[in-house]
Amino acid sequence: MTELYGGIEAGGTKWVCAAGLGPNEIHAQARIPTTTPGETIKAAIDFFRQVQQSSPLAALGIGSFGPVDPQPRSETYGHITSTPKPGWANTDVVGPIREALQVPVGFDTDVNAAALGEAQWGAARGLEDFIYLTIGTGIGGGVLANGQLIHGLLHPEIGHLLVPHDRGADPFEGTCPYHGDCLEGLASGPAIQTRWGQPAETLPPDHPAWELEARYLSLALVNLILTLSPRRIVMGGGVMQQLQLFPRLRELVLEALNGYVQSPAICEEIDDYIVPPGLGTHSGVFGAIALARQAATSPPEKPT
Amino acid sequence: MTELYGGIEAGGTKWVCAAGLGPNEIHAQARIPTTTPGETIKAAIDFFRQVQQSSPLAALGIGSFGPVDPQPRSETYGHITSTPKPGWANTDVVGPIREALQVPVGFDTDVNAAALGEAQWGAARGLEDFIYLTIGTGIGGGVLANGQLIHGLLHPEIGHLLVPHDRGADPFEGTCPYHGDCLEGLASGPAIQTRWGQPAETLPPDHPAWELEARYLSLALVNLILTLSPRRIVMGGGVMQQLQLFPRLRELVLEALNGYVQSPAICEEIDDYIVPPGLGTHSGVFGAIALARQAATSPPEKPT
Repeated sequence: MTELYGGIEAGGTKWVCAAGLGPNEIHAQARIPTTTPGETIKAAIDFFRQVQQSSPLAALGIGSFGPVDPQPRSETYGHITSTPKPGWANTDVVGPIREALQVPVGFDTDVNAAALGEAQWGAARGLEDFIYLTIGTGIGGGVLANGQLIHGLLHPEIGHLLVPHDRGADPFEGTCPYHGDCLEGLASGPAIQTRWGQPAETLPPDHPAWELEARYLSLALVNLILTLSPRRIVMGGGVMQQLQLFPRLRELVLEALNGYVQSPAICEEIDDYIVPPGLGTHSGVFGAIALARQAATSPPEKPT
Repeated sequence: MTELYGGIEAGGTKWVCAAGLGPNEIHAQARIPTTTPGETIKAAIDFFRQVQQSSPLAALGIGSFGPVDPQPRSETYGHITSTPKPGWANTDVVGPIREALQVPVGFDTDVNAAALGEAQWGAARGLEDFIYLTIGTGIGGGVLANGQLIHGLLHPEIGHLLVPHDRGADPFEGTCPYHGDCLEGLASGPAIQTRWGQPAETLPPDHPAWELEARYLSLALVNLILTLSPRRIVMGGGVMQQLQLFPRLRELVLEALNGYVQSPAICEEIDDYIVPPGLGTHSGVFGAIALARQAATSPPEKPT
């Protein structure tokens, strides 16, 4: 009997669960509203237990909202840590799921999982160095360098990059409770809504909101290019469904780099350099399955 | 007879050459002014040929000013590529040296070499994720992530990060010929000199130049922390010899992060997080020897 892999895209409003082998072979899926940790984790366990009644699970992967602790050697490995989401701070996510299902569990940030999904099956196949960004309710990113996800001390928090903000031309203060006018404070979905007084998705494609949005995103992309020298940048999330952003972003990135980085991949093939996700809106859950595949072959060490 | 390793810190004004085993065992060294490629490369070859008359060389490492091509599979591997330095654009550095000395040659940017030196013998010993920055005539950086240097498409160009610049408070246009007020344009040694009308090293420690300098550098550090989540940031170069910058930089980084990244390494131990180089002003040449050690065990592939 084929062993399946389980994936959970553990978001702040819903958990998307799936069991299968990859994007083209999903055997079961479920959407669970994110309520309390107890309820939500139990519903996810119930779903995978039902899967296990018909097919064995080789491993499970979880890409979670955060901040999280993804360091296998840490005492709080597998926890959502200091999230402002009520009831969820310091929640052990991996522990109860591993105990209930008795399978290896891979765990990382939602954006790192999504990056892995795009690397395995999406727009970054075969690339060892790339960035996945999501621009939506929040802004976040996952980075692959030399074929490995970057964690470092904790994990990247790319959404909060500080970008040039000309308050003369744009007096908007930004909405980030920590930094005011960081990237997330200037360019996330809620920032657009606060600035223009209506939900981002109701603004027409020729609204000046999008020019400003492309400008701030381009400044962040330039900084990411200068820091990481990625081979591609994959941009997903609700805001990036405004596809008119892509051509303008590409122009603005070239303009801001101003010929400094002389790479054909950027200077000549930018349409193929800054791209939408290959997995559409499913990078996260398929990425969680990619995490499960990793966990099956090299299970994360347990805390010692 | 002990085999030695050769290192060249190939700078725009001088090449520092050394042969030995590491920082505490240097058998010979030389400083060669950077004139024409032909003359400079020949002088370096002459130095190492002389070394070879008394001790065999196991390998050589070169950390070079750039931009360079550090990709072993590229046709222009080992070249200085699009540098504005007269006479040096498209110069094959590795080729003639490897041919003359008949040893494996490792090649990377000057800052990547320096990062490697600090990782091997300096302030980043044992760390798999850190950033080395140099703030001097130019600004540049090398990044280790998961124990490996980041190259990606080309190599990082951290000096040109775009940082918030309030032209109301600070109308200085910046000196970068590509970007005007990028980090290098605002905070390099020449930028300080242009802004204040006198060389940076002649400004007293309580001059307002240093508060402004710490501010711009702190904004870049915050972006690097959010992107790379390093375990330490090592800052060298002429400007950082103004040691009064360190305590102020640490304060400003904490202020700008504003509690968002909850890691004890940052929140509680910042004095140990943002630090001067362990190898003083020699990170570059010792780093080149570290590159040689790598080349001896796993020689870079030759272009195919």
